[in-house]
Parts: sequence; structure tokens; C-alpha cells
Amino acid sequence: MNAPLREPQQDRSRATRERLLASTVDLLATRGWAATTVAKVAEEAGVSRGAAQHHFPTREALFTAVIEQMYDDMTEDVGHSLESIPSGPGRIAAVVEQAVSIYTGTSFKAALQVWAAAASDPALADVIRPLEAKMGRAAHAFVVSGLDPDGTRPQAYRLAQITLDLARGFGLADTLTDDSRRRAGVQAAWVEQLTAALD
Amino acid sequence: MNAPLREPQQDRSRATRERLLASTVDLLATRGWAATTVAKVAEEAGVSRGAAQHHFPTREALFTAVIEQMYDDMTEDVGHSLESIPSGPGRIAAVVEQAVSIYTGTSFKAALQVWAAAASDPALADVIRPLEAKMGRAAHAFVVSGLDPDGTRPQAYRLAQITLDLARGFGLADTLTDDSRRRAGVQAAWVEQLTAALD
Repeated sequence: MNAPLREPQQDRSRATRERLLASTVDLLATRGWAATTVAKVAEEAGVSRGAAQHHFPTREALFTAVIEQMYDDMTEDVGHSLESIPSGPGRIAAVVEQAVSIYTGTSFKAALQVWAAAASDPALADVIRPLEAKMGRAAHAFVVSGLDPDGTRPQAYRLAQITLDLARGFGLADTLTDDSRRRAGVQAAWVEQLTAALD
Repeated sequence: MNAPLREPQQDRSRATRERLLASTVDLLATRGWAATTVAKVAEEAGVSRGAAQHHFPTREALFTAVIEQMYDDMTEDVGHSLESIPSGPGRIAAVVEQAVSIYTGTSFKAALQVWAAAASDPALADVIRPLEAKMGRAAHAFVVSGLDPDGTRPQAYRLAQITLDLARGFGLADTLTDDSRRRAGVQAAWVEQLTAALD
């Protein structure tokens, strides 16, 4: 009759793992790649170094797990987003807002650190590429459905690509300064463009 | 009568400095921030460590110089670009192509490494921010003049911003994979949009 005891232990273990992964994302986004070590992550998460090393014996194991989770989260967020998109006249603006939010949050800032590191680390780049492609496809499918719910506007395919490349550019502009004010104007201009192009 | 002797020495010194800076950009773009040390740069440039340290006593001195030169080069390139823009029907496509080329070259890949490092280094961010702003203004002025040579289309202001944010997004997508094929289609769609919006 170990089950009742084992259950909360598994829960605790899962909670510890999740805390470690969340601290890794935060550290990556705010302190950068080099500063994000297993020891530092453990400290931030309030977990002993031994427990952290039990979950992630190496820095590579931690990074692989966090990258997978980061992309899974972003992919899942995008999947859920369609439900919250209004169907009325605000639809296009809401879709663009969701697309932009993918690239301006903490996950993106963490992903940018991983990207920069992967530019000179072929093994890391190999890990990221398929996750990146999967996330990109999910984001594109979401924007296309948002812009063209009836499937009657073939131009939505390219317009969705422009929207996502633009959102990625916004994300990069937001890394060194709070770019939200300038961005709001550019984003509104793009929503206007989109509305005209989909008409 | 030291002048004839001193002249070539100054030339040599300037050439050495330029070789060191060029090697720094290449190393940043291909090997990343952490791997770009003064010693490695000297080796790549074929310059003795002593000579490298004479020009750049610290890594900070080297990085400040290379960042300034990188942004100066990008700003200057953008300034010269208008001369090569055709005035006929290919003008808009040529302006967009120039804007995209700013963000898809080696300088941008090097700049991305500096950006990622600056996200967790406030002193470095302070160095980059004004250079980045100056470059951004030059790029925007170039795209506006290219899209609206007669100054009769007020919408060119926002359309130029969208063009540059989009170009920055293209640049980021190009860091882990050669994205040129996908990009060509999206870029052509954007030129089409721009042409309609400026009409």
C-alpha cells in the first residue's frame, strides 16, 4: 500500500522540476545564457543543488528540457488563442495582438538567448530547429484561421507570414528598450493594412 | 624629416586596427559572444597578441570600437543606398531589398550577439542604445525617401516602420537556418502590399 505515499512524492517531484524550469526561463531572459547555470537555477528556485542535479544532471539536460517546455508552452498558448478571438470587427486586431504577444513575452526573451547561443553551437541549433519549425507552423495556422475563418481568402496565407515576421521584429526591438509605445503605432498601421488587404 | 617614414607606419597601424575589427565581427557572427576574445581575434587577424593589445588593451575597448564601427558601417551603407535605387517601377522592391539586406548580413548576425549579451549587461546596453537609435533613424529616413521621393504620401512614415520591423524579423529567422527561400515569398507579398498602399 505505497500508493497514497508515492502520489504526493511524485507531485512534489513534478513541482520541483517545474520550479526549476520556470527559474531557468526567468534567468535566461534577465541574466543571459552564460549566467544561467544549474547552481544558479537551483538557488533561484529555492531547491537544493542535490535535488536540482537529480532532475538535471548536466546543464545540457536542463537546457534541452527548458527549450522543449518553452516551445511546448508557446505552441499550446497559440493553440488556445483562437478560442479567445472575438468574431466581430475587432477580430483582426485581436489576432495581431496575440501574434505579437508570442514574441514580446519572457519566453521569447529567453528563447532569444538560446538562439544567440545556438548561432555558434551546431548541436544546440539541431535541438532548436525542429521545435522552432513546429512552433512556427502552429503560430501560422493560428493567424491564418484568425484572419480567414471561412477559408475564403487565399491572401491570408502570406499576410499571416508577414504578421509573424513583423511580430518577431517587434520582439527583437523590445529587448534593449521598452518599445511598447512605438510598437503600438506600427501595429495599428499593420492592422489597417491587413483589414484593407482582406477586404 | 620623419614624415615619409611615419606615414606608412600610421597606415600600417590603421590597417592592423581595421583587420582586428573585421575579425571581431566575423568571430561574433560565427562563434558568438563568449568565444570572441582579444587573443582569438588577434589569431584570426594574423596579428601578434602584443599588437592587438596595443590597439585594444581590454575586451571592453575592442567591443566598444567594434560596435561603433558596425553601427557606423550600417548607417553609412543606408545613407549611400538611395543613390542606387532605381526611380522606375522597381523602386519599391529595391527599397525593401535594401532594408532587408541591413538585417540579413554578417554585421546584423554580429549585432545580434551583442544585443543578446546586452540584455543582461546594463553598461553594454547603454553603449548600444544610442548607436541603435541613430542607425534606426538613418534606416527609417532612407526607406521613407525611397517609398515617397516626392514627399506626397504621409502613409510612407508608418509603412517604412513596418518594412524595417519586418526586415528585423527576417533577420532573426535567418540566424539558425538559411531562410532566404521562404523570405523571398513573404518579401514579394509585402512589396505588393506596399505598392497598393502607396497608390
